[in-house]
Amino acid sequence: MSDRRQPVLGILGGGQLARMLTLAAAPLGIKTLVVDTSAEACAGQVAPLIVADWSDHEALAEFASHVDAVTFDFENVPASTAEWLAGRVAVYPNPGALAVAQDRLTEKTLFRECGLATPEFVAVDTREDLDRALAVTGAPAILKTRRLGYDGKGQFRLRSGADADAAWEALGAQAAIHGLILEAFVPFERELSVIAVRGRDGEFRTWPLTRNWHTDGVLSLSLAPAPDIEALQPRATALARKLAERLDYVGVFALELFVKDGELLGNEMAPRVHNSGHWTIEGAHASQFENHVRAVLGLPLGDTGARGASLMFNWIGALPDPAPVLCTVDGHWHDYGKQARPGRKVGHATLCAPDAQALLGRAEALAQTIGWESAVASVREACGG
Amino acid sequence: MSDRRQPVLGILGGGQLARMLTLAAAPLGIKTLVVDTSAEACAGQVAPLIVADWSDHEALAEFASHVDAVTFDFENVPASTAEWLAGRVAVYPNPGALAVAQDRLTEKTLFRECGLATPEFVAVDTREDLDRALAVTGAPAILKTRRLGYDGKGQFRLRSGADADAAWEALGAQAAIHGLILEAFVPFERELSVIAVRGRDGEFRTWPLTRNWHTDGVLSLSLAPAPDIEALQPRATALARKLAERLDYVGVFALELFVKDGELLGNEMAPRVHNSGHWTIEGAHASQFENHVRAVLGLPLGDTGARGASLMFNWIGALPDPAPVLCTVDGHWHDYGKQARPGRKVGHATLCAPDAQALLGRAEALAQTIGWESAVASVREACGG
Ligand SMILES: Nc1ncnc2c1ncn2[C@@H]1O[C@H](COP(=O)(O)OP(=O)(O)O)[C@@H](O)[C@H]1O
Ligand SMILES: Nc1ncnc2c1ncn2[C@@H]1O[C@H](COP(=O)(O)OP(=O)(O)O)[C@@H](O)[C@H]1O
Ligand SMILES: [Mg+2]
Ligand SMILES: [Mg+2]
Repeated sequence: MSDRRQPVLGILGGGQLARMLTLAAAPLGIKTLVVDTSAEACAGQVAPLIVADWSDHEALAEFASHVDAVTFDFENVPASTAEWLAGRVAVYPNPGALAVAQDRLTEKTLFRECGLATPEFVAVDTREDLDRALAVTGAPAILKTRRLGYDGKGQFRLRSGADADAAWEALGAQAAIHGLILEAFVPFERELSVIAVRGRDGEFRTWPLTRNWHTDGVLSLSLAPAPDIEALQPRATALARKLAERLDYVGVFALELFVKDGELLGNEMAPRVHNSGHWTIEGAHASQFENHVRAVLGLPLGDTGARGASLMFNWIGALPDPAPVLCTVDGHWHDYGKQARPGRKVGHATLCAPDAQALLGRAEALAQTIGWESAVASVREACGG
Repeated sequence: MSDRRQPVLGILGGGQLARMLTLAAAPLGIKTLVVDTSAEACAGQVAPLIVADWSDHEALAEFASHVDAVTFDFENVPASTAEWLAGRVAVYPNPGALAVAQDRLTEKTLFRECGLATPEFVAVDTREDLDRALAVTGAPAILKTRRLGYDGKGQFRLRSGADADAAWEALGAQAAIHGLILEAFVPFERELSVIAVRGRDGEFRTWPLTRNWHTDGVLSLSLAPAPDIEALQPRATALARKLAERLDYVGVFALELFVKDGELLGNEMAPRVHNSGHWTIEGAHASQFENHVRAVLGLPLGDTGARGASLMFNWIGALPDPAPVLCTVDGHWHDYGKQARPGRKVGHATLCAPDAQALLGRAEALAQTIGWESAVASVREACGG
């Protein structure tokens, strides 16, 4: 009997995304190897972990020698690190695509080139630029760092031009380092995301559009399939495909969208599996994690259809008591194995049901036990009351 | 922020069951620690592995000091090992229950005490016993080792009394070591199993009855829910509950049943998660692996209802090409990360669908690509053609 060698997927970043990628890879017979700058990285509980800085070429060379392909848990790995690795091993998504998605300016510019409208935006490098930009966007507006922002961090909301000094005070120092962008604040009707996957061979699929609710800039709830998307789904899918093809993208990515006057506006893209796609673990035929692993290793993609309806609750800062979720029919608990810390994503739960009405019943019963009544009331409203 | 300590579940045996228990434990925030006599044990790919003999008390003490509870991947861990550990840490199922289930004689005796009929059986210790036993069971009959048999190993089928010498030739040497039992061969209509779980607090649940097909004594296909079980399900559930309560059983177990003239006969019980319950990973609200972890750690049990219909294909000896399964809608691949070897369980695949008819369509298309047409034809027949 000839020895088999199992494929090994290298993952840059060892957070919950690497953890869930590892759990999805194992049934496919695929091992993972994770690199993170911290020995506490929670993916290290389920996969071997190399602790190294992104510039530690000795450690990265060792890492590259053990893996069949490299991917990302964390999109802010320096583009130079991705490029250096790409000279040694297959890296998906490719470093060029990663670089575009790392920068809100290049990302939104690409959106427009692909026919996806965006909120009005202007690059800001100086205090004077900010005033000029405000004249274009009007107020309210949001000043954001171009790079390295996440979970609403690196953002300042301006109610009027009078907030310009405060905004500059907060983020001006970042202008020279990461660049800034001013965006018109969009009074959107709803936020959606499309999770998409593209294989090495160009095969492309999307999961059903997801409706998302944020609290303080951080995702709190995702409902899938989003209600009332008949007209929007084909447009979102076509736009995601165009983006993916332009970037020669391989793997899963998320495209965050606002809906305003029934039209789609592009907010940002995440060049990786995404928090708003966590429901796919139990709520779709193949999860975003499984399909990402399949895509980057050149396996056929799995079906992205939904199994009934799903609602994901995001646990920020600390986990609630798990018992109410564990006792909910088709309720699924996800503890990332992290220490509690304010603002940190420490876990999530997904409820599934055959249809949206049954889902709402389960979600409302759960909401009462964990104090999420008003959040879940928004979900009922989204489903037509 | 106070440090949290994640619970650790110790598992004796590091095969595919320990591997799947580990993958189910991780989202619950629970770590596992595995002991196996082989450094190649496939659970070692996903969990820390201690390589030790079952009599290595130094290694077992070290193991016990790191875990919150101990359970089994492998029911043939010596009862003395289980008892030794139970003096140091919580062991579930309890060593007494394990001992009963390890021995086909005590197991079948218990079945009868609980009101579950069994094939006629007689203990056999000598060549003369075998003749006397044959007079009781009649022929055909099966001679089995009382302990340590699995996947049809340790069995000899006698077509008539004339095979007694050959049977003794094959298994007589085992009589003094493991004991033997002669069973009447049951020309059953179908084989079913009930997967059941009992919590530390006595909470008891069963998944829907599963219909199983064996080839050469090894499971090849499982269909769930089994068709035509309206009358049998409540009886099977009540019998499983009675058994569990008699044994003060905690965790998941399987009760293998024959159906003859519409009546249930008890074949054997497996004091652990079971091959015929693998479909629950994708086909039930909570899987057998998740509920076993929950039960032994004292968490509330998850709902055991089915999500649609599921069919599990068992891969024995070597894996087929994964592509046809990966390309099937709601098809799920499970590679245990083992080397191929004749007769070895190296993986499985589960197909799911909203109902049995849709499932048959998917299963037949898959069967054609992998040469399982005749096996799947039995499944269609079971579903009423
Ligand atoms: N231009 C905008 N108009 C209205 N809301 C916005 C705008 N930009 C961001 N937001 C809100 O803030 C959230 C987080 O901002 P985003 O740019 O997606 O940053 P992050 O990278 O932190 O996810 C968005 O999901 C949305 O709810
Ligand atoms: N008494 C019997 N009558 C008919 N078939 C039997 C009998 N005992 C075992 N078999 C067949 O052999 C298979 C394996 O036997 P079993 O006793 O369950 O051993 P194992 O521990 O290897 O699973 C059963 O699932 C059944 O198909
Ligand atoms: Mg965002
Ligand atoms: Mg058996």
